[in-house]
Amino acid sequence: MIIDCHGHYTTAPEPHNVWRETQKANFKAGGDVDPAYPSISDDEIRESIEKNQLRLIKERGADLTVFSPRASTMAHHVGDEAVSKAWTRRCNDLIKRVVDLYPDNFVGVCQLPQSPGVAPVNSAAELERCVKELGFIGCNLNPDPSGGNWTAPPLTDKHWYPLYEKMVELDVPAMVHVSSSCNPNFHATGAHYINADTTAFMQFLTSDLFKDFPTLRFVIPHGGGAVPFHWGRYRGLAQDLKRPPLEELLLKNVFMDTCVYHLPGIELLTKVIPVDNILFGSEMVGAVRGIDPRTGHYYDDTKRYIDALPLSATDKKKIFEDNARRVYPRLAKKLDAAKR
Amino acid sequence: MIIDCHGHYTTAPEPHNVWRETQKANFKAGGDVDPAYPSISDDEIRESIEKNQLRLIKERGADLTVFSPRASTMAHHVGDEAVSKAWTRRCNDLIKRVVDLYPDNFVGVCQLPQSPGVAPVNSAAELERCVKELGFIGCNLNPDPSGGNWTAPPLTDKHWYPLYEKMVELDVPAMVHVSSSCNPNFHATGAHYINADTTAFMQFLTSDLFKDFPTLRFVIPHGGGAVPFHWGRYRGLAQDLKRPPLEELLLKNVFMDTCVYHLPGIELLTKVIPVDNILFGSEMVGAVRGIDPRTGHYYDDTKRYIDALPLSATDKKKIFEDNARRVYPRLAKKLDAAKR
Repeated sequence: MIIDCHGHYTTAPEPHNVWRETQKANFKAGGDVDPAYPSISDDEIRESIEKNQLRLIKERGADLTVFSPRASTMAHHVGDEAVSKAWTRRCNDLIKRVVDLYPDNFVGVCQLPQSPGVAPVNSAAELERCVKELGFIGCNLNPDPSGGNWTAPPLTDKHWYPLYEKMVELDVPAMVHVSSSCNPNFHATGAHYINADTTAFMQFLTSDLFKDFPTLRFVIPHGGGAVPFHWGRYRGLAQDLKRPPLEELLLKNVFMDTCVYHLPGIELLTKVIPVDNILFGSEMVGAVRGIDPRTGHYYDDTKRYIDALPLSATDKKKIFEDNARRVYPRLAKKLDAAKR
Repeated sequence: MIIDCHGHYTTAPEPHNVWRETQKANFKAGGDVDPAYPSISDDEIRESIEKNQLRLIKERGADLTVFSPRASTMAHHVGDEAVSKAWTRRCNDLIKRVVDLYPDNFVGVCQLPQSPGVAPVNSAAELERCVKELGFIGCNLNPDPSGGNWTAPPLTDKHWYPLYEKMVELDVPAMVHVSSSCNPNFHATGAHYINADTTAFMQFLTSDLFKDFPTLRFVIPHGGGAVPFHWGRYRGLAQDLKRPPLEELLLKNVFMDTCVYHLPGIELLTKVIPVDNILFGSEMVGAVRGIDPRTGHYYDDTKRYIDALPLSATDKKKIFEDNARRVYPRLAKKLDAAKR
């Protein structure tokens, strides 16, 4: 079975986006930030999925995508907490509809109603709703709700601990995923995303977070940002800082996906990061949508790169399925229940 | 000849650092921000260099280091423009003393007196002094003088253009190099440095800067941040954004060093980035000072990794010497003059 741990609903039906624009306009005008939601038919959802994600899942030979709201439009920096809460709920409910239409192909991961300056624990109720009522298996956690100004404390600060307690209680991991950037220095998908990945890893490296939460788990997307490329730097920094070796310090808790859009990058990833820490992901349909003229294939068809690696069948199965089952225990339970 | 394009004076004699502390204290107290500079003997400088950089240069078999003030202590966010100007001048003058003591082993690159909110053109006079009077061959340009808050406009904004005019006039490149971070999210050498590299590259990718300045040259240190690892992403983003191919768009102007502290990283770098764009660098003595227990060698002994690559002698000579001569024409002139 091939599980893609990183897919966003980047192709949501237009009325959903129109609702968001209305919400933002209302916020500016001091009006209702949770206006009536438009009627979106199952057919509209089917069309948005079958022409895009589902078509590509089938063409590329994957089975199941761990599916969450579009990352770039989470935009936690827009409006205030009430805006974020209402928008987040609408986005998560829409994911639930996709999952209900295609239960064999999608499983839900939720957006959180984060907002700059607001305690992360305020996201716990929506996380619990999504997991317990909607059957979701994880969440996306934005380390920078300010959208490129980086005003929140590091992910290792006690500021975040009450939310981590809920994650541990529910036994769900978080993918560390920023949203769009309102800082003109940072292009969203070309700099902000990758920087956030690198930043989070270094925060984990310098803290004892996983002593406090031994079962807390994070997936760092986009192949772990710059980390595998600079694996010697990180091993050396840990050593200079008198930290334990990375395997011991954080590799029981931190995982990376395969959203690296060329073969040499994936080769490096699997060469330096233990295979138990790598989860198949493509972030399709996402940041890069074109076809690489050098290969004739989509840049983000990351399955092809993994297929091309000289790894054993056991190791490939770990990347494609087993590691996802381990990192998302609620996914494993679902899959096992479906088999029975 | 082996030229290391990336060395900082991280081992400057203690009185230099004491001067800085006095300056900072004076600034806080509203006093003199350019107090009398202590007498530092040639022997003190010799000791700081011969036990460290020069010893390692010789042990590792390099010849010449492009040498600049310590990056982490540039700290452009500390004090104000007058503080930055005085400190920068002291730092650059100290580099000049090292170069004068060891003209065969070191060539100078200057720090700039940047300061948050201050026009970059205000650094042009110090750049000109360093190049024309001190014989330096380039500068370090901090894309984030705020130290982790990223409040300056992108490097591609016209804000920076008057300084670029001076760089072009003097025919000197800049290494894009941030300093320490006062944002607790960003560990300096583990996140801020690498993020800045990635950020700068993406800024260049989305702009027409090099149409405006066809001869302007930047070295992106630390192997180009995350860029080579995500080369497919950058090629794909350029394509999606209808930009020219990267070779045409920026590879005549943007170069990367080899400060990547493990063999698989260097292998990837040289596999995806054209050899003409790679300059040997180690940033020694710098971010990572330990010995890798897996190899028994210093993590930052990057020459060993390049030596181990299956590249032709011609290509290795490009990385070790020819590219540096091309990117730093004033270095080439110096070397050619010394030969005669």
